[in-house]
Amino acid sequence: MTLKKYNQGMSKIHLSPYEIILKKRNGGNLSELEIDFMVRGFNECAIPPYQFSSFLMAVFFRGMSEDEIFSLTKSMMNSGEVLSLSEISKYTVDKHSTGGVGDKVSIILAPLAAAGGVTVPMMCGRSLGHTGGTLDKLESIRGFRTNLSKKDFFRNLKKSKVAMMGQTEKIAPADKKIYALRDITATVDSIPLIAASIMSKKLAEGAKALLLDVKTGNGAFIKDIGDSEKLARLMVKIAKKMKRKCTAVITDMNQPLGYAIGNSLEIKECIETLHDRGPEDLKSLCVEFAAHMFLLGKKTKSIQAGKILALRLIKDGSAFRKLCEMAKNQGGDVKSLENPSLLPSAKYICRLKSAGKGYIKGINTHEIGLTAVMIGAGRKDLSSKIDPGAGIMLHKKIGDFTEKGEPLATIYTSRKNLTGYAKERLLDSFSISKTVPAKQKLIHRIIR
Amino acid sequence: MTLKKYNQGMSKIHLSPYEIILKKRNGGNLSELEIDFMVRGFNECAIPPYQFSSFLMAVFFRGMSEDEIFSLTKSMMNSGEVLSLSEISKYTVDKHSTGGVGDKVSIILAPLAAAGGVTVPMMCGRSLGHTGGTLDKLESIRGFRTNLSKKDFFRNLKKSKVAMMGQTEKIAPADKKIYALRDITATVDSIPLIAASIMSKKLAEGAKALLLDVKTGNGAFIKDIGDSEKLARLMVKIAKKMKRKCTAVITDMNQPLGYAIGNSLEIKECIETLHDRGPEDLKSLCVEFAAHMFLLGKKTKSIQAGKILALRLIKDGSAFRKLCEMAKNQGGDVKSLENPSLLPSAKYICRLKSAGKGYIKGINTHEIGLTAVMIGAGRKDLSSKIDPGAGIMLHKKIGDFTEKGEPLATIYTSRKNLTGYAKERLLDSFSISKTVPAKQKLIHRIIR
Repeated sequence: MTLKKYNQGMSKIHLSPYEIILKKRNGGNLSELEIDFMVRGFNECAIPPYQFSSFLMAVFFRGMSEDEIFSLTKSMMNSGEVLSLSEISKYTVDKHSTGGVGDKVSIILAPLAAAGGVTVPMMCGRSLGHTGGTLDKLESIRGFRTNLSKKDFFRNLKKSKVAMMGQTEKIAPADKKIYALRDITATVDSIPLIAASIMSKKLAEGAKALLLDVKTGNGAFIKDIGDSEKLARLMVKIAKKMKRKCTAVITDMNQPLGYAIGNSLEIKECIETLHDRGPEDLKSLCVEFAAHMFLLGKKTKSIQAGKILALRLIKDGSAFRKLCEMAKNQGGDVKSLENPSLLPSAKYICRLKSAGKGYIKGINTHEIGLTAVMIGAGRKDLSSKIDPGAGIMLHKKIGDFTEKGEPLATIYTSRKNLTGYAKERLLDSFSISKTVPAKQKLIHRIIR
Repeated sequence: MTLKKYNQGMSKIHLSPYEIILKKRNGGNLSELEIDFMVRGFNECAIPPYQFSSFLMAVFFRGMSEDEIFSLTKSMMNSGEVLSLSEISKYTVDKHSTGGVGDKVSIILAPLAAAGGVTVPMMCGRSLGHTGGTLDKLESIRGFRTNLSKKDFFRNLKKSKVAMMGQTEKIAPADKKIYALRDITATVDSIPLIAASIMSKKLAEGAKALLLDVKTGNGAFIKDIGDSEKLARLMVKIAKKMKRKCTAVITDMNQPLGYAIGNSLEIKECIETLHDRGPEDLKSLCVEFAAHMFLLGKKTKSIQAGKILALRLIKDGSAFRKLCEMAKNQGGDVKSLENPSLLPSAKYICRLKSAGKGYIKGINTHEIGLTAVMIGAGRKDLSSKIDPGAGIMLHKKIGDFTEKGEPLATIYTSRKNLTGYAKERLLDSFSISKTVPAKQKLIHRIIR
């Protein structure tokens, strides 16, 4: 569709990209029509990228009202296919995380919630920046297919109540195009743009209810808790305006979640957690989230009841069995889940020893994420390949005591030449103090 | 040159457009190297327009330090040919106006200053937005060529001390490219970008000294006097840093200059002024400017002496003879200057009568300019042709008394169907009051 045709369709209302950029630049409020005109125009190549990028920068500086953000979300959502999952279940619950280091929650949570009777249609992402991606983690299970057809996705959901796949090209294509432009024009970290980007996809994916994990801290994309809260409140409002149930939980990302960072290492930790032998922080977050999903999916009447159910589903093995069932549905090697030593491993292993004695006071989580990417656990650019066995296992986290020479972390990589530099970066990421630091809060706030 | 080569040339300093956009967006100060990298990269197509436009929008919001603006000016200036006029004269003086309605000063001033012994190499512009362009005005003199070769330009300057032409493609090409992008991305009205744009061209054109007419008011591109002053001070500083002499005069544009608006109408008014029969405001501004140019060109020792000289050159006919000489050099029909009734005229003439009685309190100059463009005196877009005879003659200006039914203006056009609408717009542009308004100041400030 050309802009001219759009204008004609709009019965003589004349819209011009220039006037809309100018209006936003001068702090004006754009109408639903103006926003839709910009999004459609850019998505359909009628508005050139150089006009859209200056529009994005004006939005970065001027912000957007709630109505504007809602219009933006709707236009981006409607740029592609909007799935309806009503034939599958009345209570479908999706979960999305804004991303962090060692954030493997989805891989535990999706089968756990499904084991409790909730239908979990989950479309996940790949490694981005300093963070890993759920798809990449799942693909470290040999054979696991994340590019399901819609038919297979629906069939698996009906059969097993859970399926995890990559977003199809048809979901919110305008978001993909806009994100690619934001990524190279320094307009990623804008709360209105982040909210619209996440919600346009999640709404198009069709789940009736949504649990949002908004990470905050030095390993999150949004480091300031005030900004995280703004984003969380916005997304919940958008969801409600679109008649979806939604809960947002603001969780801490001032240190990696659990101990494992890197694809097969994280799958192993997920398996351990489903066997009730996982790290305490990871387990408690998964149980909390599962309880919210049970509530959203009308399986339990309180968070407390949901937590009890979640703990039972872990202890009796049904959550782990659900993971194996999902893996089997999607072509994954179930034997490697039963015997994790069969999962990919790295060629070289080396220990990082503490240079001092004291309590771990802080961890530069962003730097740890970047180091993991560097040694092969993530992508430096679109063309780089992931090494599924590469990663970092932490041995100490905030509040732990270490003697001088005690191991702080273990590095797994196939690139021996990088281990020296990786050790240096990791060592610099830990700060040690003589005094016991305050206990870290894992859940900062819950917004419904 | 590719960016890679640029980076190599810069001995391994790695520059990235993304990082530079981000730095500016976050309020950082860019180095000369970073700015040059952006300008060259964009000019040479190594940095895509969508990155440069978001950079421009970030500059719009964050502004630039004087050092940054100076670097930007230099990079744009050095993107093309930088003329040296030293073989022509030690004292070359150019003049530039930021543009207004009825601003025909250059056409009087250039021959006047040259008649006083200053060498005036003037490169002028075309009609832009609601304003006319000196080139378009000159071209309403039959045969007048504004696209001189460098050789002809230099020869005319040596022979007659004055030549007026359009900017060649070789002067500051980066400015042309950047301006075209600003024009469609709502980043025109940024003081740092305006200053760098004007000064990069004027410095590349090579005159030793420069007189800047910074217009302010409702018919100028910059309406606020504080902003006009900021721009003027900036441009004078840039000129001095580049070892050029420079004076900026902030002049009023709350009403058109003189009475004539439109190409051949303005040429007629210029001729009248050179015969000492022109409007008082136009004459006094030309005399003031000529005095500044004599001072900059070391022809007189004071403004007072310069004014006396300018008045004498008008009265004794030498300024008018210089206009004829220049026109002859450039192929223009001198007969039409001697007998202005030979200049192009419009098909239709109609009078605009005052609807009320009282003093003219204000004139919406921008609207008058747009009306003149509409009836054929300017360009609506790059493809539209100018009607040299079209325009508006005012009969009343601010402070004048009018009876009801007295003519306020006369409309000249070849498009009869537009006269009704033009009359309506013009009538709305005049505001009339019972009380005598305060006298308009013509010159607000002089900055050296």
